[in-house]
Amino acid sequence: MHGRVIRVGDMGEFALIDRLQRFLQAPSGSQVVKSIGDDCAVLQPSPESELILTTDSQEEGVHYRLDWCAPEDIGWRCLAINVSDIAAMAGWPLGAVVALSLPPELDVAFVDGLYTGMQELARDMACPIIGGNMTKTTGRVSVTITVLGEVPKGQAIYRSGARPGDEIWVTGTLGGAKAGLEALLQPDAVAGLPASHALMCYRRPQPRLHEAQFLRQRATLHSLLDLSDGLSGDLRHICQASGVGAQIEADAVPIHDETRRIAHALQADPLSFALHGGEDFELCFTAPPTQIDPIRGDFDQQFHRSLVRVGTIRKGKEVTLKQPDGSETVLPARGYDHFRPAEG
Amino acid sequence: MHGRVIRVGDMGEFALIDRLQRFLQAPSGSQVVKSIGDDCAVLQPSPESELILTTDSQEEGVHYRLDWCAPEDIGWRCLAINVSDIAAMAGWPLGAVVALSLPPELDVAFVDGLYTGMQELARDMACPIIGGNMTKTTGRVSVTITVLGEVPKGQAIYRSGARPGDEIWVTGTLGGAKAGLEALLQPDAVAGLPASHALMCYRRPQPRLHEAQFLRQRATLHSLLDLSDGLSGDLRHICQASGVGAQIEADAVPIHDETRRIAHALQADPLSFALHGGEDFELCFTAPPTQIDPIRGDFDQQFHRSLVRVGTIRKGKEVTLKQPDGSETVLPARGYDHFRPAEG
Repeated sequence: MHGRVIRVGDMGEFALIDRLQRFLQAPSGSQVVKSIGDDCAVLQPSPESELILTTDSQEEGVHYRLDWCAPEDIGWRCLAINVSDIAAMAGWPLGAVVALSLPPELDVAFVDGLYTGMQELARDMACPIIGGNMTKTTGRVSVTITVLGEVPKGQAIYRSGARPGDEIWVTGTLGGAKAGLEALLQPDAVAGLPASHALMCYRRPQPRLHEAQFLRQRATLHSLLDLSDGLSGDLRHICQASGVGAQIEADAVPIHDETRRIAHALQADPLSFALHGGEDFELCFTAPPTQIDPIRGDFDQQFHRSLVRVGTIRKGKEVTLKQPDGSETVLPARGYDHFRPAEG
Repeated sequence: MHGRVIRVGDMGEFALIDRLQRFLQAPSGSQVVKSIGDDCAVLQPSPESELILTTDSQEEGVHYRLDWCAPEDIGWRCLAINVSDIAAMAGWPLGAVVALSLPPELDVAFVDGLYTGMQELARDMACPIIGGNMTKTTGRVSVTITVLGEVPKGQAIYRSGARPGDEIWVTGTLGGAKAGLEALLQPDAVAGLPASHALMCYRRPQPRLHEAQFLRQRATLHSLLDLSDGLSGDLRHICQASGVGAQIEADAVPIHDETRRIAHALQADPLSFALHGGEDFELCFTAPPTQIDPIRGDFDQQFHRSLVRVGTIRKGKEVTLKQPDGSETVLPARGYDHFRPAEG
């Protein structure tokens, strides 16, 4: 930080709203009729589309720490987790509104950074920031973002459609965000180890928006979500919504080399990071056996990443883990609960 | 509060989400395709409509105090201020998503009350609660609601359309919410005075949703907003967006008898409550001279309330106040700024 500190409380609400508009480029699409500056933003949806709406909050000290992330990372992350929910319905975003709760003593430079990071992702994902609200808080910085999106009528992919026999797939390696978080929590224990991939997973998660479009257009998917709580917790969400069980194959779960090395340095099991870590924001979906193999090559080529099959949907209710030796155990649900954090 | 206290932290995120669904009735319209329980809510908009989107937050200790409002009032109020923004575009709501930040030690009964009050307004306004998010906070209870609505294509009414010669109208008495707030702040000073109207204005503001529909359908409105910051501040928003000035006639501003008596008991000017108080959530609009008079009778009959003309849009930039003796003064902007609260 250089130069004079200007506090949010010195600048005032309306000057701050004016200031932040400089970070927001005019949206390139024609769907935005009216952006910031009136009682509501106004959008023109496509004909024959359904609307999809999602909201999520991030609070300092609960979801991130200021010594772990730059303000730009926090802005990116807050928008990314919402856009990821749009991807998880196989839709695309129309626009976002941002509700900020700010302590009056906060440096305006922090808010500038937040909006800079948000705008980077907004541009990458064609998700213009079209409105918001700003209020004082007696607590810490909190960012609540709501994203409106659309999907062709009847083509949203829900959690509730998984059927016995479906293959379970993920769009990338798992456990990276957990490895990044642990590297920040225990820097001495991982000193000297490469961690740039893991830190990027944690600080700048990539919503798999284009990947979800590709999959919806090229294959029949029975169920789809994004991995925010961890594979063990989120797969349980699919199973409960669909009335089915699942088997995960331990040696099929994709784990990045950095994640393995960081886990080993911490005397932890890399598979535990991948199954329970959460916040990877890769997609997890189920599809009938013949659907995915024929499109894997095109997917690799287009996105420079691989679709990986991690298990099978079965009858029943249990989610189990099959070891390479053939033994099978019931997988405990250890996904993240905001009010009762699970152990690592 | 009776019975055993169950804390949010004891119940956990997912059990709490399940619990809250009992407070939410199935939406009666056919526009909701998928409600709570997936990555996004899914909605079917009307053909040929534009979408409108607004968000607002309310935090304990900043926007309300627990000794002033029941949890039901807080829930009502949080949704009402958002639905009021939908009314201020002359649209109607499609659905709302609710992001709650809750301290783990909070009694679950408080959350029940919050949702009970929200659901009361949601039913009255046909604005189903279709999704949300719940997270822990290290601070106080905070509620951020986002409402999606729609309006026939090209028929949203903005702040920016006011023209010199327009009449300025409001949909009801002003200053009531301020009187209610002062009655709560200084109970001894107003002891014995009737305050039920004023308290209702503060605790249970009524979005003028149906009134805005009536006005859009029956007259040509040039500009429209809801009075959240106070007439002096909000009329300035219209003037700045439209590049015009305005004159308010002091003796035309409608003030409820209770508001007058409470102001007098506090040695305050009732007109100051009405001009600068804020949070009345009546509509303020401008229209050409011949538009409103012919529909006033029907409006009265339908809504049991009166449209009141409070002034005139003029060339220039200033907002002035004309006294009954013909003198005219520039009206200072004393609307609410979240980071720099104005004096009473």
